[in-house]
Amino acid sequence: MNSSSLSPSILSKLASIVGAEFVLTSNEDRICYAYDGQRVEYLPDAVVRPADAEEISRIMILANDEHFPVVPRGGGTGLSGGSVASSGGIVLDLTRMNRIKEIDLGNLHMVVEPGVITAAIVAEAEKNNLLYPPDPGSVKVSTIGGNVAENAGGLRAGKYGVTRNYLMQLSAIAPTGEHFRSGARTRKCVAGYDLVSLMCGSEGTLGVVTEIALRLVPLPKFRRSMVATFADASTAGCAVSNIMAAGLIPATLEIIDNFTLRTIEDYAHLGLPVDAGALVLAEFDGLAESAVDEEGETGNRVLLESGASGVEFAKDAAERDKIWQARRVALAALSRAKPTSILEDVTVPLPKLSDMIARVERIGRENGIAIGTFGHAGDGNLHPTILTNERDEDEMKRVEVAVSQLIDAALELGGTVSGEHGIGFCKAPFLPREVGVESIEVMQRIKRAMDPNNILNPGKFV
Amino acid sequence: MNSSSLSPSILSKLASIVGAEFVLTSNEDRICYAYDGQRVEYLPDAVVRPADAEEISRIMILANDEHFPVVPRGGGTGLSGGSVASSGGIVLDLTRMNRIKEIDLGNLHMVVEPGVITAAIVAEAEKNNLLYPPDPGSVKVSTIGGNVAENAGGLRAGKYGVTRNYLMQLSAIAPTGEHFRSGARTRKCVAGYDLVSLMCGSEGTLGVVTEIALRLVPLPKFRRSMVATFADASTAGCAVSNIMAAGLIPATLEIIDNFTLRTIEDYAHLGLPVDAGALVLAEFDGLAESAVDEEGETGNRVLLESGASGVEFAKDAAERDKIWQARRVALAALSRAKPTSILEDVTVPLPKLSDMIARVERIGRENGIAIGTFGHAGDGNLHPTILTNERDEDEMKRVEVAVSQLIDAALELGGTVSGEHGIGFCKAPFLPREVGVESIEVMQRIKRAMDPNNILNPGKFV
Repeated sequence: MNSSSLSPSILSKLASIVGAEFVLTSNEDRICYAYDGQRVEYLPDAVVRPADAEEISRIMILANDEHFPVVPRGGGTGLSGGSVASSGGIVLDLTRMNRIKEIDLGNLHMVVEPGVITAAIVAEAEKNNLLYPPDPGSVKVSTIGGNVAENAGGLRAGKYGVTRNYLMQLSAIAPTGEHFRSGARTRKCVAGYDLVSLMCGSEGTLGVVTEIALRLVPLPKFRRSMVATFADASTAGCAVSNIMAAGLIPATLEIIDNFTLRTIEDYAHLGLPVDAGALVLAEFDGLAESAVDEEGETGNRVLLESGASGVEFAKDAAERDKIWQARRVALAALSRAKPTSILEDVTVPLPKLSDMIARVERIGRENGIAIGTFGHAGDGNLHPTILTNERDEDEMKRVEVAVSQLIDAALELGGTVSGEHGIGFCKAPFLPREVGVESIEVMQRIKRAMDPNNILNPGKFV
Repeated sequence: MNSSSLSPSILSKLASIVGAEFVLTSNEDRICYAYDGQRVEYLPDAVVRPADAEEISRIMILANDEHFPVVPRGGGTGLSGGSVASSGGIVLDLTRMNRIKEIDLGNLHMVVEPGVITAAIVAEAEKNNLLYPPDPGSVKVSTIGGNVAENAGGLRAGKYGVTRNYLMQLSAIAPTGEHFRSGARTRKCVAGYDLVSLMCGSEGTLGVVTEIALRLVPLPKFRRSMVATFADASTAGCAVSNIMAAGLIPATLEIIDNFTLRTIEDYAHLGLPVDAGALVLAEFDGLAESAVDEEGETGNRVLLESGASGVEFAKDAAERDKIWQARRVALAALSRAKPTSILEDVTVPLPKLSDMIARVERIGRENGIAIGTFGHAGDGNLHPTILTNERDEDEMKRVEVAVSQLIDAALELGGTVSGEHGIGFCKAPFLPREVGVESIEVMQRIKRAMDPNNILNPGKFV
């Protein structure tokens, strides 16, 4: 059934560009592209699946002629609505462009197309004794193009940084159809404006990335992982700041509160200590065993001095996997506990982490709603997750109040409305509270200059 | 003597904004602001020295009303003409804005004004057992605002990255006078377009940075420094690639060719091995002594296996300082050897480093000109420095050919025209060769959107 609101003439032109089998217009197909990881639904008029940069360029030129929106999309795992066709038009599905084109073991780089699954990049690097460090929770299903569009963070960001820190060079199609390139396959480049960083995190509003050169690093040879139990989450938050203030640089430093812990255990039966007020998971890694051991021992000491009731080291890879499995299923577990889950992404300066945790608890209590908190504590990045039911109108009103209070709390503590999930349309109303209207105006000037007809992913934060 | 070509009315309005004593119009004063580290001269019409963001905003609004150029300037140590008033107008001297406003030992950040000398930031961090890693050669005289404008690199970039990697948050004045802010004082932030990275490296063409929040890291506790001697620079270049391919991450990895080595020795009398074809200087650092020792030993082994005729470790801090002193005076020594020195900044992928060194030697030989080569070899970043005399017209023609050939060689080898010195007006003609005209067009769209009257630092690369 073809129920697209695009004209037959436009659909036929799209088919002539990408081939008729790569223009999807049935309800069944379009519904699959109607939401992201946050699940708000907007049906696109059609889904178009290009094979290369040239096809994308021709689609952009057509969109400018005919004035329909184009919304680039990778794995659809975003959590802020960045890849959802909230203003209609076509979803540009980039998953056919999924080739790893080159790996250079001397220069430590890899060249990929945007539709490559992030985990495939990590696996290819590891085969060659290298690491691609960014590690979003969705790594097994997200695409690298989506990671670039949202500047994905993840579990290893404290030591290794986020997606932006690994981008050497991007090729892209401008909203008006031109091919452009920025950056170089070198470790340094100051050749004009940094369009690589401008594209990264721009959520597909300024161009469609068609090729990405990623920097890789030597694979750490040694790892020490540990779990510390705490009586309450606020004390755990203090312990995290103490770890960082001690000059330690853990590869990963995560927090899980009691509510989330119990939900994970109910879901995955991992034998977790469900009576603990909170867990802190830490991992140190590096190229020299003695150094990793030393960091691990110092970490252990700081955790105990900060009030941990116990610290357990993973004795082997299996135990290590269990620790990280617990963290990785947190969102899935919470999502299944109630019909609707709303995942927040507030981030504060490290010394304010414990305050923020206390505020989250108070906001949940005062509004009478369930909030599970976990996150990348070493980055000050928390994911308070509200469990609710969107059919319960009364509760949803209180949820709305709570979300707004969470954001205000993060900003009051000197933080940001989004550490790693982006703004999309979900968080767009909150962005001016953080950056101010004059910064939004500067962003809009750039958007208008790059996309005069507002074709590319309209209706998002800008 | 007032010889400004700005009208008395404009000069009087400027004086009413910043105070008459902070508007300089005498030839003596203006000459001091007429050049940068590369020494091409353009006399500004006046020098204006604002005290704060509000004054800068009012200056920008006046410049838009009266249509005169505004060229922001810090220490004037740039090497590509980024802070020179090549189209006339006023130089906006930011060195009065030189306060360190805050250091946060829990969140590991420092908040500074743009006119703070980079070395003062490093010193303040070290006092608190922290490190601000970017380390441009001009660290003792350059300002942090200039470092941001050029995205300065320096000696520690291979392991620690460049200026951009340490920017948490910027406040700035738009070319049209608005105050705007981007980034957050958190370890992650994806709140809209990354205006922090867009401003970084934009050479004062998109806004005037008025406040900078810098990320700091724990100060490494241990260091191992060494010097390796090689029969020729090309072999030394191979050794550098081998170090990186061995999975080592030196804090610093520098190369000095024989010509530069002899020039340094003539200048500084450090007792250097002037018969060596080239030196490689390496330093490993870290938080654990055993790990640093292990990296140093592996580095030593790789250097010897790669053909070093000898490797000497620095036995103490004094020996270590001597090694780095040799590298730090390279440019000063070369600059004094002949009336004119032209410093290049070509950067190639690491496996091409040895090829690039061989090409530099051939280009010097074939054009009959003297080129000393040194640079941040671990980043693939070389500074071939042409020694000449600008009054020798015939030689200058050959120099021009050689510069163009150097740039083509870097691009042919997959590199960039500028690793860390920026484009300014000196390298503007070469930029399209690297990024293509469509990327330049995208940059120009952004410039026009932010600066419709082309007031801010006109005539530079964009």
